[in-house]
Amino acid sequence: MKKTFFLLLAVSALLATACKTKTSPAVLKTDVPARPAGQENVIGLRTEPLETVRIGVVGLGMRGGDAVERLTYVPGAVVTALCDVVPERVAESQAVLARRGMPAAKEYTGAEDAYKALCQQEDLDLVYICTDWSHHVPVALCAMENGKHAAVEVPAAGTLEDIWALINTSERTRKHCIMLENCCYDFFELSTLAMVQAGAIGEPIHAEGSYQHNLDPFWKAYWDNWRLKENQQHRGDLYPTHGLGPVCQVLNIHRGDRMKTLVAMDTEPFNGAKMSEKLYGKPDATFAAGDQTTTLIRTEKGKTILVEHDVMTPRPYSRMYQVVGTDGYAAKYPVSMLCFREFEEGQPVDAHTVGTEKVYRGAAADEMLEKYPSPILTPELVALAKEVGGHGGMDYIMDYRMVYCLRNGLPLDMDVYDLAEWCCVTPLSRLSLENGNMPVEVPDFTRGAWDQLKGFSYAFAE
Amino acid sequence: MKKTFFLLLAVSALLATACKTKTSPAVLKTDVPARPAGQENVIGLRTEPLETVRIGVVGLGMRGGDAVERLTYVPGAVVTALCDVVPERVAESQAVLARRGMPAAKEYTGAEDAYKALCQQEDLDLVYICTDWSHHVPVALCAMENGKHAAVEVPAAGTLEDIWALINTSERTRKHCIMLENCCYDFFELSTLAMVQAGAIGEPIHAEGSYQHNLDPFWKAYWDNWRLKENQQHRGDLYPTHGLGPVCQVLNIHRGDRMKTLVAMDTEPFNGAKMSEKLYGKPDATFAAGDQTTTLIRTEKGKTILVEHDVMTPRPYSRMYQVVGTDGYAAKYPVSMLCFREFEEGQPVDAHTVGTEKVYRGAAADEMLEKYPSPILTPELVALAKEVGGHGGMDYIMDYRMVYCLRNGLPLDMDVYDLAEWCCVTPLSRLSLENGNMPVEVPDFTRGAWDQLKGFSYAFAE
Repeated sequence: MKKTFFLLLAVSALLATACKTKTSPAVLKTDVPARPAGQENVIGLRTEPLETVRIGVVGLGMRGGDAVERLTYVPGAVVTALCDVVPERVAESQAVLARRGMPAAKEYTGAEDAYKALCQQEDLDLVYICTDWSHHVPVALCAMENGKHAAVEVPAAGTLEDIWALINTSERTRKHCIMLENCCYDFFELSTLAMVQAGAIGEPIHAEGSYQHNLDPFWKAYWDNWRLKENQQHRGDLYPTHGLGPVCQVLNIHRGDRMKTLVAMDTEPFNGAKMSEKLYGKPDATFAAGDQTTTLIRTEKGKTILVEHDVMTPRPYSRMYQVVGTDGYAAKYPVSMLCFREFEEGQPVDAHTVGTEKVYRGAAADEMLEKYPSPILTPELVALAKEVGGHGGMDYIMDYRMVYCLRNGLPLDMDVYDLAEWCCVTPLSRLSLENGNMPVEVPDFTRGAWDQLKGFSYAFAE
Repeated sequence: MKKTFFLLLAVSALLATACKTKTSPAVLKTDVPARPAGQENVIGLRTEPLETVRIGVVGLGMRGGDAVERLTYVPGAVVTALCDVVPERVAESQAVLARRGMPAAKEYTGAEDAYKALCQQEDLDLVYICTDWSHHVPVALCAMENGKHAAVEVPAAGTLEDIWALINTSERTRKHCIMLENCCYDFFELSTLAMVQAGAIGEPIHAEGSYQHNLDPFWKAYWDNWRLKENQQHRGDLYPTHGLGPVCQVLNIHRGDRMKTLVAMDTEPFNGAKMSEKLYGKPDATFAAGDQTTTLIRTEKGKTILVEHDVMTPRPYSRMYQVVGTDGYAAKYPVSMLCFREFEEGQPVDAHTVGTEKVYRGAAADEMLEKYPSPILTPELVALAKEVGGHGGMDYIMDYRMVYCLRNGLPLDMDVYDLAEWCCVTPLSRLSLENGNMPVEVPDFTRGAWDQLKGFSYAFAE
């Protein structure tokens, strides 16, 4: 598939009216490939239950090594394959398995395409992909083509071509393709989702998410310096999914609503270019990613989402995570806050009245949230998650849920369309930015089925 | 001047390229009226020093009544005229003057156009306008045409036609036209501006401001229900200046940089329509203003501004006020925060490292800010401001500075182009919203002089 396949097209409406010198809203559209014949969507996909989920982990650097250890604590999971281009990393993970009393896994290393042999391994059900971004899609496609489920670190894909390839391959092979968006399993986000679903803040109408994380001390830590290179070469929000995933679940995206229009705006790469010069010793006049990139998304139902990305400036780590409802509000950063419509009718107000809402902050907010336990959590699971760790436990909950659903033949919490929707902000924000902040149409990645499910829910065994 | 004068025009670049079936960024442009012959800009405008500034206050409801009392504390200010359509309000303010030992002011009341006679009063230098929004511009124009300076509550104007009329009238009459943006005088904002100007957070590259204020208990308190009507009739960010003013000062807007492109996105009026139905007893299918409106602005120098507006949902009051710099960060809501680039080179990092920046919160942030006193504050002024009050003192500082500058024949802190830039977000966000979130070009209201001043500064008498 050529890259030109996804050339942007000015909508016919624009062409038709502009040439008559009338004005009309214009929106950039991308091509939606027709679903291949004989292929169906994978909404609610259930696959054969697995007594044990046999997992191959590809990419054992920053995130993969942790995943291997976590998976040894997940009931019914066993790591049967390990792969990294660097042999020492495979040995380190092998040692982790030994220390945890697990059988040795098969090893694949020494070449960038060592994953291909892994994907062909027989005692393997799932390929768990923690490589650099550029290898996410090739490994995931290879996994599914070889009859394995694919679980891919964030962001799973950075181009529309890759996103559609993952969708089409999942639909054709009937294999799960899940993005490992751990922030959907953070305790605050889980409880807020439960609170929203209980109707406590009315209808959620606007949400915000972000990735504000100064990567200054990290840039040199990535294999082959891949992460700075991504920012050097690509404009757009390169890392939208941590902020977007949890709020899309709250807003029932492709479960009754869908993202429809997107616009983006960025700053110049003030710090990015300086960082490049510092690392490479020469001025960088073509550094692509702005220091701050902001994206706005409007849904079919007239709700909005704000997503921010900033990995270049010193500011407090934040994923924002704010949900604005018709009758209340929840926010996680910089302090937990809940707010509810609790005015006394007829109370005196004047021009100075602010803050008459009932606001819960910090510990009070956390206590209030305890009234809305997530259905996927049990006290035992929470205790184990906190012991095993991984960003405070959320990584373990994520792994646990995925393995649980695979073992019971249930739909996963996140499907390939979630992956597509959360990742598409990267190429679509770029399209908007490179075209003077023009609005861009967000494709319906389900190709017609975004309203098939009624609300986000978790699957459970009978 | 007809409203059609400001019809949006698709840029010629769009027409030229789109008709060749090539794509090109499109931006909506509004007409910039040519500066009338013999007229010059009012950047740095100085007018004849006034020993005493004689002030007429028009609109004595929610904000105007407070202003009368505050002005009695401002050295060199005297209220010589009072005007309101409701006679009782004039009497109340007259009583305030008497209680404060000031001479009685002339009274104008009983008709919506009573302000016209006030503007002709001889012992009057400045008309201080606190009416409903729809009367801001007529009164301000009338004041200047009668040789008086105009000070207008926020938002001073809601249409481009009105904004250009204020600019042209100020330029022709050489009278000041200042918008009373009190949030520029909040202590946090003042100190942060001083801190940024001292270089403590490097180059400011992104800023956020908002008006998040649930007006639920207020809707019924406005004369003739004007405020809900504004929201019923007009889509767009109707109240952008509290968030935008302070960050525009930080970013040196029309003092070396300028707002260039704007895009906006809003939600449906979920709560707005319900509020209308509650007040009027019938469903409202045409309520215009979305519950949440979000606007993005990019400057000539490649910096960005985010502005949010939400007066319809219960959430904690917030003006956001966040400034992102290349070397630091400041935020006011929901808690004071400062953050600086203070990494130790070579410190160990791994995939879990977050929050290694040096962050100051709450009292620690406020203490740090004390290192950057605003040049306009003295201990005596701060003490008096806090005693007089008005949103914690900022209203008094604002009045004090305006009168001080007028008495000394100095340029005011905020000029008519600030008014224009901060207010234009209302009509320009509407233009974007009504055209599918298209980008809109922000006019250069200085008509060529945005780079004439080098940085924001306050004027002082020798």
